[in-house]
Amino acid sequence: MIHAHPSQPVDRASPGPYGSVMPNPPRPAAIVAGEVSPRAQQTIYPQPLAARVAGRLKRSLGDAFGLRNFGVNQTRLAPGAISALRHAHALQDEFIYVLAGRPHLVTNAGELQLEPGMCAGFPAGTGDAHQLVNRSDAEVIYLEIGDRTPGDSATYPDDDLKVVAGPDGRWICMHKDGTPY
Amino acid sequence: MIHAHPSQPVDRASPGPYGSVMPNPPRPAAIVAGEVSPRAQQTIYPQPLAARVAGRLKRSLGDAFGLRNFGVNQTRLAPGAISALRHAHALQDEFIYVLAGRPHLVTNAGELQLEPGMCAGFPAGTGDAHQLVNRSDAEVIYLEIGDRTPGDSATYPDDDLKVVAGPDGRWICMHKDGTPY
Repeated sequence: MIHAHPSQPVDRASPGPYGSVMPNPPRPAAIVAGEVSPRAQQTIYPQPLAARVAGRLKRSLGDAFGLRNFGVNQTRLAPGAISALRHAHALQDEFIYVLAGRPHLVTNAGELQLEPGMCAGFPAGTGDAHQLVNRSDAEVIYLEIGDRTPGDSATYPDDDLKVVAGPDGRWICMHKDGTPY
Repeated sequence: MIHAHPSQPVDRASPGPYGSVMPNPPRPAAIVAGEVSPRAQQTIYPQPLAARVAGRLKRSLGDAFGLRNFGVNQTRLAPGAISALRHAHALQDEFIYVLAGRPHLVTNAGELQLEPGMCAGFPAGTGDAHQLVNRSDAEVIYLEIGDRTPGDSATYPDDDLKVVAGPDGRWICMHKDGTPY
C-alpha cells in the first residue's frame, strides 16, 4: 500500500519517459460527467466502418481520475446512432446503464428496448455479440464500463472486422481474414 | 473465444461441485436496476463496525449477468447513512456515479458535496481514503464499480480495521494489529 500525498498521487503503473515512476498532476476529487471533454479519439474503427458510429459521443470518466483496471465512459447517441458495431469480447466484461432515452439492445437473441434505470452486462467469452441502437427521436445517454484484461480480442459477426489488443494495449483492427485495413 | 449458445452460456471461471465446467442458468438480457433483489450479505464488517453501515442497501447488478472481472452495485443511502468506513484499496480501482440525492464525498483532502450526474474515481494504491456520507434529508442512490484484482487489501485510517482478500477472493477482516475479529 503506497500512501501518497493527495496533491501528488503516485502513478505506479505508468513509467515516465526515462522509465522511472513520475508523479502525475493532481486529480480532481469529483467531476460533472457531462462537462468532461469528449475523447480526442472517438473511434478505433477504420473507414468505411468509422462512419457507422457517427452520432456517437464518448466522454472518458474513469481516465479523468487515473483509473487503470477498467474504463468508464458516458456515451451519447443521437437519434439513429449506434453504440458500436455488434461485437463480443473474448476476455473483457462489459456493462451498460441507461441514464436517458430508450435505446434498443441488440444481441444474438434479438432486440429489447431499454429505458432509464435499466442495465445490461456482457460477460467475456460467451460469443453473444451486442450493441445499442437508438431508433428513437430523442438522445440516449448511458454509462459503459469495460475492464482492461490484457490479450483481449473482439469478434464482429455482422461485419468484416476483427479487433485484437496489441502488447501495448492498443487495439489493432483487421479484416476477418487477418489482412490489415 | 468460446461461442456458447445464448440460452446455455458457459461459465469458464467457476468449476461445478465436481470440478467440471457446468452450464449456468440463462442470464437476463437486461434488468431494471431498482428491481434487483438486495444482496444477501449487505456488509463484510464484523460487529460493532457493521452497525455503522445501517441504512445502506446494495444491489449487485454486474453479478446478475455473470460478470467476473468487476462488480457493479446500485447502492442506496438513507438519510444519515454512509457508503463504507473510509478506506483505500491497494490494488482495486473504484468509481462512483451519483444517480439521485446529494451525498458528501469525504477523502483525505476534505469534503465535497456531490449531486446527480457527478462522479468520482479512486485509483488503487494512492492511500487516499474515501467514503460517501448522506448528510441530507433525502435518499441517495449511486452506482459503484470496483474491479476484482486478486491479492487486494484495504486500509481504514479512522477505524481499527484492516481487510485482506483471501486466496478464494473472500474478504478477511482483522484489527489493525492483525488479530482476528
